[in-house]
Amino acid sequence: MDPRVRDHAEILVSHSTSIEPGDRVAVTAPPAAEDLAVAVYERLADAGAVPVMLYGGDTILGGDRAARAYLRESEEFENPGHLQALYEETDAAIRIRAHDNVTERADVADEANAAYQRAVQPARTELLSTRWCLTQYPTPADAQLAGMSTEEYEAFVWNAVNKDWAAQREHQEQMVEILDPADEVRIKSGDETDLTMSVSGMRTLNDYGENNLPGGEVFTAPVPDSVEGTVKFDLPLYHQSREIEDAYLEFEDGEVVQHDAAKNRDVLTSVLDTDDGARYLGELGIGMNRDIDQFTYNMLFDEKMGDTVHLAVGMAYAECVPEDREPNESATHVDMIVDMSEDSFIEVDGEVVQRDGTFRFEDGFEE
Amino acid sequence: MDPRVRDHAEILVSHSTSIEPGDRVAVTAPPAAEDLAVAVYERLADAGAVPVMLYGGDTILGGDRAARAYLRESEEFENPGHLQALYEETDAAIRIRAHDNVTERADVADEANAAYQRAVQPARTELLSTRWCLTQYPTPADAQLAGMSTEEYEAFVWNAVNKDWAAQREHQEQMVEILDPADEVRIKSGDETDLTMSVSGMRTLNDYGENNLPGGEVFTAPVPDSVEGTVKFDLPLYHQSREIEDAYLEFEDGEVVQHDAAKNRDVLTSVLDTDDGARYLGELGIGMNRDIDQFTYNMLFDEKMGDTVHLAVGMAYAECVPEDREPNESATHVDMIVDMSEDSFIEVDGEVVQRDGTFRFEDGFEE
Repeated sequence: MDPRVRDHAEILVSHSTSIEPGDRVAVTAPPAAEDLAVAVYERLADAGAVPVMLYGGDTILGGDRAARAYLRESEEFENPGHLQALYEETDAAIRIRAHDNVTERADVADEANAAYQRAVQPARTELLSTRWCLTQYPTPADAQLAGMSTEEYEAFVWNAVNKDWAAQREHQEQMVEILDPADEVRIKSGDETDLTMSVSGMRTLNDYGENNLPGGEVFTAPVPDSVEGTVKFDLPLYHQSREIEDAYLEFEDGEVVQHDAAKNRDVLTSVLDTDDGARYLGELGIGMNRDIDQFTYNMLFDEKMGDTVHLAVGMAYAECVPEDREPNESATHVDMIVDMSEDSFIEVDGEVVQRDGTFRFEDGFEE
Repeated sequence: MDPRVRDHAEILVSHSTSIEPGDRVAVTAPPAAEDLAVAVYERLADAGAVPVMLYGGDTILGGDRAARAYLRESEEFENPGHLQALYEETDAAIRIRAHDNVTERADVADEANAAYQRAVQPARTELLSTRWCLTQYPTPADAQLAGMSTEEYEAFVWNAVNKDWAAQREHQEQMVEILDPADEVRIKSGDETDLTMSVSGMRTLNDYGENNLPGGEVFTAPVPDSVEGTVKFDLPLYHQSREIEDAYLEFEDGEVVQHDAAKNRDVLTSVLDTDDGARYLGELGIGMNRDIDQFTYNMLFDEKMGDTVHLAVGMAYAECVPEDREPNESATHVDMIVDMSEDSFIEVDGEVVQRDGTFRFEDGFEE
């Protein structure tokens, strides 16, 4: 086994999910990630945890080919109460992504995908109430999506994953200190993106490899009805096996009132039609991981890049929303990325905190 | 996909587990059986079921390599309460066996295996309270164990599985009618096997492809303390990746008081040492499937052969034991087979019902 796999497993178990003796753990792994699943089980044994293994691909349904078959053949969907019961008794969930074919679900109808996401929301909510971490194992198919050789992609993934997360946390804390007490945020990029929103009273979290591995962002929840303006997501976005190119959204009183895309506009439409909350923003995230130095068409990595901002329509993360606030609720949560490397800035309460990809607290920042 | 895979899936869903709309189903599948898992999901969608997929290999732990790593590294074991919670909410469990390497767990210590089986008994009991079916998908490694080419083994498996189960049920019912009302059973084969036991008051069940696919036996539970005599299991037995050759047991008042084996005697010892119930018989089974015409070192098939009787030490199946009786309880259940094809007979209440492998109700039977 590649020694980097065991390093990866060690971070997942010790850092990301902080496994303690007796913890009940659910590992979700596709067959293509078997080496990592084995290494994780070695560390779980050392930690005295009690693991079970779900068949990955789809978080809920299992293998990608089987999930595709089920979504195509089914006429309606129900919440899997038995899986929900499992997550009610689970302390930590380690979810490994790895593909044999990134487009395995390309011929599932958008409506079926959306209906399915709505149906399984209770099970998914229970999963998200555990200490969960989502990570990536590098496969040839994922390398192909990135346009890389398999060996190059392995190096890319493990460089981003196997790093000093304490140092990364410290770097990001500078941005948390700016955003957490803030009221208004403005995202400006090129001619088509000029968006303002309130984050007043919301919590800004520092993602240093806990829920996502790699981590490398700070994120919060916008006040749902405060979002105004337009945004063009000019960076790659793959959703349910299809690329949505140049997604464009226009907001009024927080709601998406116009949308467009250069390719697969209907996929975007079906996301927005999932439910009422799918037309409001659930997340504002700011990428800060300088070890991720190229786009790979994989949101887990792309959204962490230092020169990007991402916004998600749909569900807000509960941890970002204090008890006296209403979180945006939805069965979906789809991240989309804006390139901030040129002709761009982030303004917080009227002050520029990032210009052309460089933060105020980094070398080379120009006011 | 091979059309025989879809036939196999159809029998699993419609016949073995009788799936109804809304049924919550747990499919346990190893990656090597992916085609069958996909075909099962197609049928589950048609039936309106709600499936999730567990990673097979080990019924509880997941993939075989990961299970091996966990069993080797762990110092103690706990019941997986989260998996038990899942099975409490599950209507039907479809468990698919298929190996990449049949001896993947050959270097796990016997004590670890036994301790693990004891620890997970509550979860396993909950699984066995669902409508469950255990089946086999033919892989190159399983073919290798059988000493066959992969294509030959595929034909062997699907001939045994994809058949007329109503006709098989009728054939077996003749034996149920003999055994169900009986008191005493005697198994005699060669010089070393002469065993008597009471089955008085116990239920005899007809296995026609429900809990096992292929099915093809009738089985009951002996009265635990009634078993007397000696038995030599002269047919292949693989347990936890190791072959136990020529296992020999001697019973007094139902308890194993002597045991031996020509190979891997220590594996047999550790089975018997699992707990108190592991030294008593939990099952008497009579093979009746004439389509299984050779031994393949796979208990799911071997025990169904028409010329065999099998006995299991350990747990009795609850369905065989009426409420006013005590079922033999144990964390283990290990089947072992006696060749009845030559110099052998089965006697029920003093009457010979099978001689040299031929039943009383079959052509060629000699009183």
